[in-house]
Amino acid sequence: MSHTAELIAVGTELLLGNIANTDAQMISEGLSTLGITVHYHTVVGDNPQRLSEALEIARRRADIIITTGGLGPTYDDLTKQTICKTFHRELELHEDILEEIRTWFQKRMQKKMPENNTQQAMLPVGCTIFDNPVGTAPGCAFEEGGVHVLMLPGPPFECRYMFENRAVPYLRQLTDGVIVSHEIRVYGMGESAVEEKLHGPMTTLTNPTLAPYAKTNEVMLRATAKAETAEAAEELLKPLVRQVREELGDVVYGVDVGSLEEVVSELLRKRGLTLSTAESCTGGLVAKRITDLPGASSIFRGGVVSYTDKVKSEVLGVSEAILSKYGAVSEPVARAMAEGCRRVCGSDLAVSVTGVAGPGTDERGTPVGTVFIGLASEQETLCRQYSCGRGRGRSRVRTSTAQNVFDLLRRYLLRLPLI
Amino acid sequence: MSHTAELIAVGTELLLGNIANTDAQMISEGLSTLGITVHYHTVVGDNPQRLSEALEIARRRADIIITTGGLGPTYDDLTKQTICKTFHRELELHEDILEEIRTWFQKRMQKKMPENNTQQAMLPVGCTIFDNPVGTAPGCAFEEGGVHVLMLPGPPFECRYMFENRAVPYLRQLTDGVIVSHEIRVYGMGESAVEEKLHGPMTTLTNPTLAPYAKTNEVMLRATAKAETAEAAEELLKPLVRQVREELGDVVYGVDVGSLEEVVSELLRKRGLTLSTAESCTGGLVAKRITDLPGASSIFRGGVVSYTDKVKSEVLGVSEAILSKYGAVSEPVARAMAEGCRRVCGSDLAVSVTGVAGPGTDERGTPVGTVFIGLASEQETLCRQYSCGRGRGRSRVRTSTAQNVFDLLRRYLLRLPLI
Repeated sequence: MSHTAELIAVGTELLLGNIANTDAQMISEGLSTLGITVHYHTVVGDNPQRLSEALEIARRRADIIITTGGLGPTYDDLTKQTICKTFHRELELHEDILEEIRTWFQKRMQKKMPENNTQQAMLPVGCTIFDNPVGTAPGCAFEEGGVHVLMLPGPPFECRYMFENRAVPYLRQLTDGVIVSHEIRVYGMGESAVEEKLHGPMTTLTNPTLAPYAKTNEVMLRATAKAETAEAAEELLKPLVRQVREELGDVVYGVDVGSLEEVVSELLRKRGLTLSTAESCTGGLVAKRITDLPGASSIFRGGVVSYTDKVKSEVLGVSEAILSKYGAVSEPVARAMAEGCRRVCGSDLAVSVTGVAGPGTDERGTPVGTVFIGLASEQETLCRQYSCGRGRGRSRVRTSTAQNVFDLLRRYLLRLPLI
Repeated sequence: MSHTAELIAVGTELLLGNIANTDAQMISEGLSTLGITVHYHTVVGDNPQRLSEALEIARRRADIIITTGGLGPTYDDLTKQTICKTFHRELELHEDILEEIRTWFQKRMQKKMPENNTQQAMLPVGCTIFDNPVGTAPGCAFEEGGVHVLMLPGPPFECRYMFENRAVPYLRQLTDGVIVSHEIRVYGMGESAVEEKLHGPMTTLTNPTLAPYAKTNEVMLRATAKAETAEAAEELLKPLVRQVREELGDVVYGVDVGSLEEVVSELLRKRGLTLSTAESCTGGLVAKRITDLPGASSIFRGGVVSYTDKVKSEVLGVSEAILSKYGAVSEPVARAMAEGCRRVCGSDLAVSVTGVAGPGTDERGTPVGTVFIGLASEQETLCRQYSCGRGRGRSRVRTSTAQNVFDLLRRYLLRLPLI
């Protein structure tokens, strides 16, 4: 049997634009991998009458209602009360949950539980309790007249935990079989080109399915299959993932991986190599992204942000003759930066970046987006020129440059053709 | 007269969780500064029947409906058609708009306009046209039975432009007076402490109003006033902004500014000073944030990411004796890093960061979140110890450390007490 869900987010802060409704995105993504169709998202303020009206509308058009928010201890947290009124359920006090909340306050906050937190221990009669180890508000679920109502807390961190660990197991019981999905990550091919190459499977397949997701500067595809067992689902996915790899070639940089820098870090770790970075226009962004990852110190030695010619020459040893002859944004400077960086940081490999991030051109009139990326190893130094960011501003030039650095490293380490 | 708005986002990609509904946040924030109350957000897929039902519900409970998305050229872009059907309007072809779209394709895409783009030049009879210089889909608005319906394109960049430059002027005509707001930025005081200090004005004021907005690692307050003229609104805001400054003190780092690093960059520029950075645990994040800002090269000389002792000693000149005696995460090393960085980069000021970002402690068992920040000038070197991130993981330690670096610089440059 197929299910239709509606998400109702409760919170005036959403209607004021203080925050975006990221809970809805997270839950929708999760529901789609469970094979549950979402027809509507609704956002309503901390207002019992309007919430009640939204619930009345939702129960007519969905058989799964998931609410987020309004489970807190204050007077404007009224989700449970309003749902119970609308669905004619009583609330009852759970002494054990009250005790847990009291303990939570003592341990985490080192203070006595304020009295109004008592209402968090009130839950609908006969509900499935979703206990909450990451906050004070438990969630819950019940079924009434064929409609399942699930209540989750609003803060994104709590909501994600409670959805993944409490709501998903509850919802799995309503659906038959197992759903498995894989994320295929693509860099170096635009979304429209990817869709053109995979138009067939994207539009015609029903199980498994293939769908594109927009990411900054890259494309992510999700392949999803439903079967009686995880093994059977994997069998359905295998040929699809293979087909995607064949159609797209080496722009597929990984399946179920976090990012290009994660792939590069893993490759370096496997080969026992270390890296250092010399950056001009990216100003530390490449080093920042490598060191975002835990355990970076085993593969990353350090970096130099050479924002002036003085730093390029005195720290990295780029000769002043080269700087004045070719200008800072040039292939010879990128090569010398990489070689110098490798030497001073004592790493196996070094990458360098010099380019024009904008908004203005450099003093030689080099256009915004022009970037040289160098790569030095013990054996050789190479350099590639890029045009990054396509006129979409400084931030895009920098992000896209960093992506190109990591893709160049990936290709170098895997001995793939360097684009 | 006060207005009530409902936002309807059209797009199956939102219901699949491919993207978050950031358009709704942006528009809601804008409407709140216009004094227009938003009661509901609705998200619906590319489905004419369900969109039509959503419109029927919305027209009963709002007098301003703003739709986003579904104005594109493909078969599933059906917002205009569905709205016209629901509100009994005809669509008519605008030859001049068609010509503009043709020209846009020739100029921007260097290709002939595909035939299905013709439908983008079809608009409701008698509507106000919102021409779109940043894309091909024009928006529009009309009034029917006391309800204003505004249609905006979905892609966030286009939507923001069209909202700010087309929808806002249209909506201003519906509201009396002028609304002015100021953003007050706060670092170094938690949201609950800020709310406690300003509980009075936040809960009792109606014009002007004061509302808190959640930001990463800081607090933003927005003061908004409505009056007949901008000058009169400013007069209403002045005492409120003064009161906030008095209540909160020097944790207010700016009004209508972009970020702490922007304030620091501006202070450096005014004083004609330059900066360099020596980073361990932040791994380039501080340099990255300074160089995110256009024009950074006038105040930023460069930086060193010293992820190993070798780089600390060979590039920054930190003595090996100090490193082995005190360990890399220590006050003497932070001081030596700042002094060395200032020397090799040739800057007036240098900041240094050494700490434990986690997930593990360092080899001496220093707890995650322990950070030393050094600051060297010609006259002196100082250092402060922090406990950053409060156990919320590597990313939070790094972000919070960078914030502390910029706040230390701000306080130093303004001769405020260093916390």
